[in-house]
Amino acid sequence: MKFNNRNVYVSPKSKIGRNVKIGDNSAIYDNVEIGDNSIICNDTVLGEPLPAYYQAPDYENPPTAIGPDSLVRSHAIIYAGCTIGAGFSSGHRITIRENTMIGDHCSVGTLSDIQGNVRIGNYCRLHSNVHLAQTCVLGDFVFMYPYSVMTNDPHPPSEDVKGGYIGDYTQVGVHAVILPGIRVGENCLIGASSVVNKRVEDFSLAMGDPIRVVMDIRKYVVLGKGKPYPWMYRFERGLPWEGIGYDVWIKQNAKK
Amino acid sequence: MKFNNRNVYVSPKSKIGRNVKIGDNSAIYDNVEIGDNSIICNDTVLGEPLPAYYQAPDYENPPTAIGPDSLVRSHAIIYAGCTIGAGFSSGHRITIRENTMIGDHCSVGTLSDIQGNVRIGNYCRLHSNVHLAQTCVLGDFVFMYPYSVMTNDPHPPSEDVKGGYIGDYTQVGVHAVILPGIRVGENCLIGASSVVNKRVEDFSLAMGDPIRVVMDIRKYVVLGKGKPYPWMYRFERGLPWEGIGYDVWIKQNAKK
Amino acid sequence: MKFNNRNVYVSPKSKIGRNVKIGDNSAIYDNVEIGDNSIICNDTVLGEPLPAYYQAPDYENPPTAIGPDSLVRSHAIIYAGCTIGAGFSSGHRITIRENTMIGDHCSVGTLSDIQGNVRIGNYCRLHSNVHLAQTCVLGDFVFMYPYSVMTNDPHPPSEDVKGGYIGDYTQVGVHAVILPGIRVGENCLIGASSVVNKRVEDFSLAMGDPIRVVMDIRKYVVLGKGKPYPWMYRFERGLPWEGIGYDVWIKQNAKK
Repeated sequence: MKFNNRNVYVSPKSKIGRNVKIGDNSAIYDNVEIGDNSIICNDTVLGEPLPAYYQAPDYENPPTAIGPDSLVRSHAIIYAGCTIGAGFSSGHRITIRENTMIGDHCSVGTLSDIQGNVRIGNYCRLHSNVHLAQTCVLGDFVFMYPYSVMTNDPHPPSEDVKGGYIGDYTQVGVHAVILPGIRVGENCLIGASSVVNKRVEDFSLAMGDPIRVVMDIRKYVVLGKGKPYPWMYRFERGLPWEGIGYDVWIKQNAKK
Repeated sequence: MKFNNRNVYVSPKSKIGRNVKIGDNSAIYDNVEIGDNSIICNDTVLGEPLPAYYQAPDYENPPTAIGPDSLVRSHAIIYAGCTIGAGFSSGHRITIRENTMIGDHCSVGTLSDIQGNVRIGNYCRLHSNVHLAQTCVLGDFVFMYPYSVMTNDPHPPSEDVKGGYIGDYTQVGVHAVILPGIRVGENCLIGASSVVNKRVEDFSLAMGDPIRVVMDIRKYVVLGKGKPYPWMYRFERGLPWEGIGYDVWIKQNAKK
Repeated sequence: MKFNNRNVYVSPKSKIGRNVKIGDNSAIYDNVEIGDNSIICNDTVLGEPLPAYYQAPDYENPPTAIGPDSLVRSHAIIYAGCTIGAGFSSGHRITIRENTMIGDHCSVGTLSDIQGNVRIGNYCRLHSNVHLAQTCVLGDFVFMYPYSVMTNDPHPPSEDVKGGYIGDYTQVGVHAVILPGIRVGENCLIGASSVVNKRVEDFSLAMGDPIRVVMDIRKYVVLGKGKPYPWMYRFERGLPWEGIGYDVWIKQNAKK
């Protein structure tokens, strides 16, 4: 249905891996490299040119890489200069601006908007409509939920860009806002609609506007369900410890 | 302007009603059925295939139905397996994922994102950029305003999906969040930016984070305007009691 | 890369200025006028027809104007009846509905959704995913950040539309909500996730839900940085006082 080679543009300056599918109405611009076995759905733009393209006659598109085994769903726009790892998966209509680096096995949900010069680790999952301002950084296994936002300008408008940081395994609830330059530790749970205006230490269950640490998340008990956090002992779908458990995976990893 | 049969793909396995218009650059995939007199605008995808399509060579697209007299505005993506009633109307760039059932005379605003396995009654209106997580349920005549969100995961990340429920006639303000599994009653007004973390009974005027019931909405008086709620006695545009009044419509309906 | 004249539709009833580029897969509908040296990127729709188009056989598209030296990024939808000034710049996938008037040198970010009958002054900047309800008004030099929303219906649902107003130089933080009919003065800073439910006077630093004025912003001191507001004395990129300073510009302007 989606791959009829109808109205597809592939730059002769791009490098398409083996067994790659490109959907109808898509455009792969100069200097894009797509890894083997990846699927680029319809109406997608890869290697979107930078602002200079509109002015400089000798503009050269910076290299863009999408790793192997990726699935980019329809209507994505990924700018030139991005490097995205293996096993990437996206929803529809994502926008990823230039010089963003995304690790392996990440997903970016429908309508999410990554503003450029962002760094995202491995196995991160952005749900729908997440907004990351320029220079923000995510560790590994960070999950962000719809309409959560990372900002970067402490005194808008300014040129003083300070993206925040979110540590490994942390979960950021819907509509939460991370203020500029703020560091959220590892293994935190940030509640829905929180405004994170100060540093949050590892293992915090935190919520509210302004953010307030409610407890050490390791002490959080759900009636009849025990202690749900850290979550890696009870959730494994698509994660490297799937089928073996987090403890075993950690030990295997330590050996390497 | 929009219907020039330019770059249109219509699957031979689809079933297009009488007097249906399909806009330029649109794609109607397998097993989509469009009711009579519907207008599908440009750059729209109906019957978007499910994840299995990318792997299973014998993938069969589940049936998708759009009712008669519908107007799907441009750049919509509606997944296979959805059933949408008569008189549907959408904004631009909506996304509706699989197995969602929407009743008659509903509208879904620009950028709204319905995550699949959602049930929506009749005459519901989602304004722009509403997000409904999987398994959420709306009654009839529910109106949701921009950036309002229904969630479904009580302890993210988990496999324990619990969509919430919103009762008939309830209005959900901009940026409001309904937490997982929460039931909001009928005829409520949920204020802007509320976080609904507990059950809200019928006829509540409720707001805040966490949500707080301010009063029985039937007692709410606006200076010089009387009691605006329940709203059905003062608002009728596009509703079944238009021209006859809510009381008459209720009586007529009771007779049937 | 973007301008190959591939699958482009330009109405013979449109008027395209000198040196205008139109990207692939774009459609310029009837009665659109594009100023000289403007760039309309790919997959864009200008002059999107109004609802009457779908019913009235003699529908005539109202005139739409995009000023000279504009850059409309890809996948924009701008309705017929809009008037946009010179030096306009947009992100991707913006939606601007009918009868919106935007002054000169404004920018509208990715996914922003302007609902129609909105008035925006000069040099305003909407960042990503800003939502402006019908009849809202912005002064000059107003900057709005992601997911900020202006609403217009005091008692939803109603026909009693009352857009709000934001004064010159005011900055509206991420996820802030301006309630219907509210006036925000000049030179204010509205904090992230605020709910502005009452009038805010000029020079207010205000935040919270409900909004609370913290101080006169002219008294706000940042350690080691002095007084950042009013911001025009320290930020000039793309603004008319760039290179000469705000004071000089004001004096020059006063002479005219």
